[in-house]
Amino acid sequence: MSETERAGGHSGAPSLDPDDWESLRADAHRMLDDVIDSIADVRERPVWQPIPDDVRARFGETLPRGETPLGEVYQEFSNSIAPYATGNVHPGFMGWVHGGGTAVGMLAEMLAAGLNANCGGRDHIGLEVERQIVRWVRELFGFPKTASGLFVTGSSMANFMALLVARTAALGPQVREGGLSGEPLTAYASAAAHGCVVQAADLAGLGRGAVRRIAFDAAHRIDIAALRRRIAEDRAAGFRPFLVTGSAGTVDTGAIDDLAALAQLCRDEGLWFHVDGAYGALGMLSPQIAPMLAGLSEADSVALDFHKWGQVNYDAGFLIVRDGEQHRATFAAPAAYLRRETRGLAAGSPWPCDYGPDLSRGFRALKTWFTLKTYGAERLGAMIAHTCAVARHLEARVQREPKLERLAPVALNIVCFRHRTSSGDADALNAEIVADLHESGIAAPSSTTIGGQLAIRAAIVNHRSTCADVDRMVDAVLTFGAQRQR
Amino acid sequence: MSETERAGGHSGAPSLDPDDWESLRADAHRMLDDVIDSIADVRERPVWQPIPDDVRARFGETLPRGETPLGEVYQEFSNSIAPYATGNVHPGFMGWVHGGGTAVGMLAEMLAAGLNANCGGRDHIGLEVERQIVRWVRELFGFPKTASGLFVTGSSMANFMALLVARTAALGPQVREGGLSGEPLTAYASAAAHGCVVQAADLAGLGRGAVRRIAFDAAHRIDIAALRRRIAEDRAAGFRPFLVTGSAGTVDTGAIDDLAALAQLCRDEGLWFHVDGAYGALGMLSPQIAPMLAGLSEADSVALDFHKWGQVNYDAGFLIVRDGEQHRATFAAPAAYLRRETRGLAAGSPWPCDYGPDLSRGFRALKTWFTLKTYGAERLGAMIAHTCAVARHLEARVQREPKLERLAPVALNIVCFRHRTSSGDADALNAEIVADLHESGIAAPSSTTIGGQLAIRAAIVNHRSTCADVDRMVDAVLTFGAQRQR
Repeated sequence: MSETERAGGHSGAPSLDPDDWESLRADAHRMLDDVIDSIADVRERPVWQPIPDDVRARFGETLPRGETPLGEVYQEFSNSIAPYATGNVHPGFMGWVHGGGTAVGMLAEMLAAGLNANCGGRDHIGLEVERQIVRWVRELFGFPKTASGLFVTGSSMANFMALLVARTAALGPQVREGGLSGEPLTAYASAAAHGCVVQAADLAGLGRGAVRRIAFDAAHRIDIAALRRRIAEDRAAGFRPFLVTGSAGTVDTGAIDDLAALAQLCRDEGLWFHVDGAYGALGMLSPQIAPMLAGLSEADSVALDFHKWGQVNYDAGFLIVRDGEQHRATFAAPAAYLRRETRGLAAGSPWPCDYGPDLSRGFRALKTWFTLKTYGAERLGAMIAHTCAVARHLEARVQREPKLERLAPVALNIVCFRHRTSSGDADALNAEIVADLHESGIAAPSSTTIGGQLAIRAAIVNHRSTCADVDRMVDAVLTFGAQRQR
Repeated sequence: MSETERAGGHSGAPSLDPDDWESLRADAHRMLDDVIDSIADVRERPVWQPIPDDVRARFGETLPRGETPLGEVYQEFSNSIAPYATGNVHPGFMGWVHGGGTAVGMLAEMLAAGLNANCGGRDHIGLEVERQIVRWVRELFGFPKTASGLFVTGSSMANFMALLVARTAALGPQVREGGLSGEPLTAYASAAAHGCVVQAADLAGLGRGAVRRIAFDAAHRIDIAALRRRIAEDRAAGFRPFLVTGSAGTVDTGAIDDLAALAQLCRDEGLWFHVDGAYGALGMLSPQIAPMLAGLSEADSVALDFHKWGQVNYDAGFLIVRDGEQHRATFAAPAAYLRRETRGLAAGSPWPCDYGPDLSRGFRALKTWFTLKTYGAERLGAMIAHTCAVARHLEARVQREPKLERLAPVALNIVCFRHRTSSGDADALNAEIVADLHESGIAAPSSTTIGGQLAIRAAIVNHRSTCADVDRMVDAVLTFGAQRQR
């Protein structure tokens, strides 16, 4: 058929399909070549570079009224957007806990966007792919067949949803209709837990204060005895403990709480045991790391992000709940426009929208499926173990360098250290060094505070990062440290 | 440089980059050609087809341990995934309120996945693009410069977040620490409002019962007098009204509440005025539809989805809040690992994570930016108006056909109708007809219940849908109706 007939396109029609598919195709192949080159050549570019003022100013343009040829829009992307991205594709990116992404995941995301599926519900293949990944996570974690799972944006959302499921389990489904009505629910997590664990209580109406922040030990693991005491004190004071969140990879240092001890404590105390495994839970893919996660399989729920250690392109968070019925009882709700049928597109109940708050859901499962299928569990596990080996290399280097000091033990793949100073403000010096590193384009660690001291925090999450990359970062820290203290 | 040196790739290295970039590139171009063909040739395929049992069974395979060549994984995608997608790319898809997506948005999503940016925070271009879209929405809606905005998955999340902002505005920021403590807050929405408006109160701990469902009139618009009465009754009974949600495009019929009257009522009563404009708010792009949305500009917050009328590929929800400070006061929280600096990658505060619960956030702004830039506001507005014209064509056809009856007025682009029956169960008949339509692959409307009667619900959201497509759907309804009543 003619070009104009394809997809019903013809001049004057309101369809947004192009009149000339071949021109679009030419633009598209150019974009694809460029994006593949940009991944392949990532080492030739700076990790990050500041956005020049004139580039930033270009985004002040008002709402476009008329049309612009795709090639011109793409040119603007190439000039003003592509060079100034986050940088986490680069092996020198060691800030925060970001995965590097892969070309495979990028291609899968392209295919997903082409299908444009809404994975909120109904009977289509997007949900089967997601269900397969639920089964894969069950298998990996040793969860029962009755466990349910769901893709979400990230662990902030997954931790919030887990708290809601625990709340419903504690108070019964009538809480959904009647609200909290002032029940003195209390939850527990390490003081080293991620902020989203506390945020979850805020969002849910319990308040941040309902989460008791328990002290951690020298290894940055939650103090189990202190936790047990606090629960007893709260019970004695009339509070109603309902949830303990263990961290499988704390945000600052990557410490893993003693999950087996927490599981036992939760059984003893009759509490919901949730694990925030935002990046650490996928350590189950590595035979070397999985033993450190003993107890994870006993959790009532686990939050994790495939876009961290799993290297799936952003965003791909995930929640798994041991008791799928409790999960569904927290989120499912009837609606006339969501009628379930036994055949046709409206079949296939239960739907993902029965397990979470989203009805509009992109096809996050596809990029995860491509990643797991293409690389396989063993290679992904080896890559994860390798990031920990690179972190140990960095730790050893830090301990060899007299000008540097380690600020926290290295459990997995995060190293917190800093440049010493003979006189002056070590916090200010190290903050400057981190900014110097960013601006140099050599490496991008983040900073945090460990025991009141500002730390340079290198999280080796990117599958491309090697020992040579962390050595380059340390060399630059020493150079900038010397320059700043001259 | 050699292929193996690019991106540090070399045999035996744990990096997930390919050893052979040219082989990956060849696969990638084949995928791109196929996905473009699949969009261009969408009319040659059924809207939807049931997943055959043997295909469904293939997704029962356990977690892959070893590697699989990308080309083989793609072959499995081509055989077992691509043919069984939701179908909303097709012009015959009229179910629920799904946009059709565009090839432009798909390409932008590919580029975004290549950059792999996390748009939760820091100083990179992803945030500048998002900020530009915030300004564009402000401009389109007539919101002040102090308004803030944020991409989210969809309006379910945006409506929840708006409720939280309204809650913080009503109770003060101490609610975040102390929780709800049993304040008898009440919110208001039409009985025709989307279920996520009620869900928001459940998630926030207020309970679904805190949302008073107000009657609607013959045009399916909220009864303002009844709303005013209910607020007075609640106040008299000791409740604390704090929020009214108006619907700009109800889910069942597409009715638009009298937003100007609601704005006035909220001013009179001192209540937060939120608009759920999941699909309707982008009607502001059309000079013909914008007048029906009068009052939207006076809202305290608006939720909307670019993936519906905006045709942006899934998912791309959005929240705008008039008072950016109140918005930030609801979500911002300090964390050592989110230290803000004045230079380097950790600069650029405030960050998106200060305006919502997500810290992991894909680059939804890019596909929206490409869509708005490429097509421009005028063409998008014309496309939106065209979907309403197609709906009016369908309405007229329904009214001409003696075997059909219209079940609700047509305000925008949704037509609820059904096949009459001389004897027998009309609900069952119409449910069968909808499933017949799905299985035929001709068209995919959804069903809902209007005034206790099962309706065939055709939502003309896809930019590709034409009058010929809705006529084909009606012809098929008549054919299946006759067959089933023979």
